[in-house]
Amino acid sequence: MQRIYNFSAGPAILPEEVLKEAQENLFSLPGVGMSVLEISHRSKVYDAIHLQAKQDMSELMGITDDYSLLFLQGGASLQFSMVPLNLMPPANKADYIVTGSWSKKAVKEAKRVGTVNIAGTTESETFNRIPKQEELKLDPEAAYVHFTSNNTIYGTEWYNEPEVGNVPLVCDASSDFMHKKTDLKKYALVYAGAQKNLGPAGVTVVIIRKDLLARSQDSLHTMLNYKTHVENDSLYNTINVFGVYIIGLVAKWLKKNGGLDAMYAMNKEKAAILYKCIDESGGYYKGHALPDSRSLMNVTFRLPSEELEKKLIAEATKAGFDGLKGHRSVGGLRASIYNAFPKKGVEELVSFMKDFQSKNG
Amino acid sequence: MQRIYNFSAGPAILPEEVLKEAQENLFSLPGVGMSVLEISHRSKVYDAIHLQAKQDMSELMGITDDYSLLFLQGGASLQFSMVPLNLMPPANKADYIVTGSWSKKAVKEAKRVGTVNIAGTTESETFNRIPKQEELKLDPEAAYVHFTSNNTIYGTEWYNEPEVGNVPLVCDASSDFMHKKTDLKKYALVYAGAQKNLGPAGVTVVIIRKDLLARSQDSLHTMLNYKTHVENDSLYNTINVFGVYIIGLVAKWLKKNGGLDAMYAMNKEKAAILYKCIDESGGYYKGHALPDSRSLMNVTFRLPSEELEKKLIAEATKAGFDGLKGHRSVGGLRASIYNAFPKKGVEELVSFMKDFQSKNG
Repeated sequence: MQRIYNFSAGPAILPEEVLKEAQENLFSLPGVGMSVLEISHRSKVYDAIHLQAKQDMSELMGITDDYSLLFLQGGASLQFSMVPLNLMPPANKADYIVTGSWSKKAVKEAKRVGTVNIAGTTESETFNRIPKQEELKLDPEAAYVHFTSNNTIYGTEWYNEPEVGNVPLVCDASSDFMHKKTDLKKYALVYAGAQKNLGPAGVTVVIIRKDLLARSQDSLHTMLNYKTHVENDSLYNTINVFGVYIIGLVAKWLKKNGGLDAMYAMNKEKAAILYKCIDESGGYYKGHALPDSRSLMNVTFRLPSEELEKKLIAEATKAGFDGLKGHRSVGGLRASIYNAFPKKGVEELVSFMKDFQSKNG
Repeated sequence: MQRIYNFSAGPAILPEEVLKEAQENLFSLPGVGMSVLEISHRSKVYDAIHLQAKQDMSELMGITDDYSLLFLQGGASLQFSMVPLNLMPPANKADYIVTGSWSKKAVKEAKRVGTVNIAGTTESETFNRIPKQEELKLDPEAAYVHFTSNNTIYGTEWYNEPEVGNVPLVCDASSDFMHKKTDLKKYALVYAGAQKNLGPAGVTVVIIRKDLLARSQDSLHTMLNYKTHVENDSLYNTINVFGVYIIGLVAKWLKKNGGLDAMYAMNKEKAAILYKCIDESGGYYKGHALPDSRSLMNVTFRLPSEELEKKLIAEATKAGFDGLKGHRSVGGLRASIYNAFPKKGVEELVSFMKDFQSKNG
């Protein structure tokens, strides 16, 4: 059947090529005689899938041998706990930069482990921007600095990492993971739920610099200890086989389409089309994020009234644009345009929005 | 392509009907225009999948309103921690019956939380049987009694639950979950990785009696607290959408095929065919489990020599019987014959085994 344009914030759109290959082989992997849903995570068939996914991601992102790439479960939400449980000792204090709801949830769990210093926040400005470097109050003795690279709900994004000196930098990159090539050397740990830019829900990617593992104490519960997963190459217990398989297909697709630099260029182009429409609407469409903090992934905006917002969403849904409703905590609209979202869909949405404005302006 | 017989212990075989339906709809769910890999976990489409899977499982298992059915992540291995973290206080002691490697792993995590009383174990007999009721040394003041209903590695299974009086009974049912209709009233909590009898890897089913939730302290990390997941109907954070979708298809298949009583009858029939072959081999095939503890799910056996075992496995693989190699900790062979495994495949394996014996006896 006809596919629609899926603007959902996550789980989100995946490349059609990936879906088609997964579909073709779902009943039986070529030469295997079993579905990828049925193969043992200890089999040679899975080993090859696992290794290839890791290799392709490492190549795309420039992950070097001093880092481990893990495929875990539990989402970013479980990382909110695992990060402080593993990394906060022995200093037992950490800096958190709060740029939205997800940062706040990370803070909540970290406080169960030790002292949290809010090194910066834009909450009083409804999280409509990323704090400037000079606003940050960083503790040079913090165990780490935690930030959220992209804020799905508010539609803001860090263009450059906060400068943190020698303190390890930890990033929740769930909603802009692999949208561009970042300098991984700046990071001590990056985590991301796969379900936005990388694959289906149910896999959490963690990239951890190996020297950090010295902090993980043996008293930690086995499944909550990063050492367990590094030592067992994410296979201490049964991994989400299908999820990693799809991630592998997405990584292959990314390589085929020019890698992360090409992806970044396209992401900037797509976002620019949408922000231009907002900026040229004479205030009819009003972006939530300030221009210097606008997300390339999640474009959030309002209309002159909630009635018009509802009307636009209803008409858009009928026209084949799905998932435009903003998060309940900020209202309005949100167009999520991750790597796999086609430029054509953005252009068609803009055309629809202009048409809507002319009829309802 | 031709499918082979998959005797893997888990992830394991799924019903062909389920795979075919999933395959047909993987590119786009009927009437939705998006893949199930792309739909939001907050969408009406997913709501319907979630509700139907829960309803069908509740109907199949007889889950009543005083229990909550959860779809979590992290596998049974994370439950090894969540169970004691949530349920051990305030007594801070619990009984564990140890019948294999997985029970031992559960004990290891429980000891991080409080005092563990090993209420029974058959470790000195290489876990070749389930302890008898009169062998158990239960503490009437224990917070709970934990047991492992089926031992994948050793091929043993509890035919009846241990009798524990008023102490809450907790069961790791990962490898025989839903292989028969059990009297759920006997249980306070049941957990199971889905990847053996119920679906793909990446979903952990937890069934918890609601009164137990009073024990979960607010100081627990949010994702480790059962209350979080009960209060949010497993949707506190992004659920494994695809995994629950497949579980729903399996539940539908179970209903269509007569439910758990019919499944149990067939499981007994399949296991009997295989054990008969072992028993009538004149000692050529030797079962690991004692007859009164034999698992209906995992049939473990040895041959007269390791050379013959290797030879059989190699020839079986060529003949289209996969996954027969036993767990490295016990060696030998293991045929896992879960709900979805066809009787015809068991009959063909037996025929193959008889032929092998006649040629190599």
